[in-house]
Amino acid sequence: MPAERTREHTAPLAAARRRRLRADRARQLADLLRHLVLTGGFPGGALPHEDILAAEYEVSRNTVRHALDLLRAEQLVERLPGVGTVVVAEKYSHGLDRLMGLAETLREHGRVTNEVRTMGPVAAPAPVAERLRLPTGTDVLYVERLRKLNGLPLSLDLTYLPLDIGSELIGADLENTDVFRLLEQITGQPLGHAEITLEAVNADAHSATVLQAPRGTAVLMLERLTHLCDGRPVDLEFIRFRGDRIAMSGLLRRSL
Amino acid sequence: MPAERTREHTAPLAAARRRRLRADRARQLADLLRHLVLTGGFPGGALPHEDILAAEYEVSRNTVRHALDLLRAEQLVERLPGVGTVVVAEKYSHGLDRLMGLAETLREHGRVTNEVRTMGPVAAPAPVAERLRLPTGTDVLYVERLRKLNGLPLSLDLTYLPLDIGSELIGADLENTDVFRLLEQITGQPLGHAEITLEAVNADAHSATVLQAPRGTAVLMLERLTHLCDGRPVDLEFIRFRGDRIAMSGLLRRSL
Repeated sequence: MPAERTREHTAPLAAARRRRLRADRARQLADLLRHLVLTGGFPGGALPHEDILAAEYEVSRNTVRHALDLLRAEQLVERLPGVGTVVVAEKYSHGLDRLMGLAETLREHGRVTNEVRTMGPVAAPAPVAERLRLPTGTDVLYVERLRKLNGLPLSLDLTYLPLDIGSELIGADLENTDVFRLLEQITGQPLGHAEITLEAVNADAHSATVLQAPRGTAVLMLERLTHLCDGRPVDLEFIRFRGDRIAMSGLLRRSL
Repeated sequence: MPAERTREHTAPLAAARRRRLRADRARQLADLLRHLVLTGGFPGGALPHEDILAAEYEVSRNTVRHALDLLRAEQLVERLPGVGTVVVAEKYSHGLDRLMGLAETLREHGRVTNEVRTMGPVAAPAPVAERLRLPTGTDVLYVERLRKLNGLPLSLDLTYLPLDIGSELIGADLENTDVFRLLEQITGQPLGHAEITLEAVNADAHSATVLQAPRGTAVLMLERLTHLCDGRPVDLEFIRFRGDRIAMSGLLRRSL
């Protein structure tokens, strides 16, 4: 009975195909809604009713629900009984166009405070010494800070600074001031440029705990070597941003 | 017996503190080793023996083991019995300084191929139409591609293009050519600039499956709106890069 055997085989295949197509459509819709969520595209922070979204985006109500589930898993929206789906994202944009400190960047969003977890001299290991152009083993200042915006953890920063500059940081108001600003005050010259590398990494258990995020949460990892205006490298940082709290935005050009 | 009671309370506290300190030191070491792993800092791809790393970085062997565990969890290194710890990262750097396609960027690392999962006209939803400066509901070309380097999945790209340009893409060799290059061929003008947003996101189950990565894996999510030289927006993309395969690197300046 070839007909029956075909049906037997194709029914689960067709169901799998439908699930795959729905998941693809849900991702597509979620990406469009994500943009609106992050750019304040829903006035009052309330998303339209599922039926309206389904009509507007010409998808099924199931696809809308699936898409909203994806955004909920990213903690961008929440479903409130009797109200509907609302924006709950506390996600802020950090500029990729100019070298700026966190407090400078987020000034309009609130107050950045820094919990200094560790601060003191350490013998520079080879990869630190090399990048700060110091002999291996030279003492450098190591600072570990948990950075918060309006009391919510944003990032865990590990920082290495040459000791001639770093020693002047020890007495400074690190709790309330960007290291960038202090560096410019101490050296009397503006910062010049920074080489950066951005990666997406699953947080290890301990980093997640410090950032008060679930284990395995996606973090935006930024490695940054900042130079003074005269070219001297003075600040090597390893920053773990909570993925749900920070996005990086900028402009790229085709020709330099 | 106050002395005993104190001991009772402080022993677990002291142990917790030791664990915390070791985890902090392991993260610190892992960040330094990660840089070396990603920049080819271990000749031959073999990491020094744990004892040598412990001496070099002035940490305990337990801290070294913990740090290597963190890098192993990120699939940057692997422990081979009888050999030691070796670099296994297949992680490539995508430039943040210039607007470039994936094949252009990764040319030296191998061949980029694109599996076209979906391609066809769709009525532009409001957020797409607005950004491409078209009336809502205008047909645009939607393309979904799984991009691979030497056969390994790198990214899942969702792309929207105006149909006058998009329709010429349909017959093009999308499997082997960057959309950027095709856009320049079709329009006869170079690309101008792109507005980008980068985020770290945990992959949903379906996206992870498509990318052949574990569920919840950290993806580097890039939203990019690319304009032609004359300013017209022609290419809206939502790209999920596997976090373990792509890093973004660039240079930021303090003053513009």
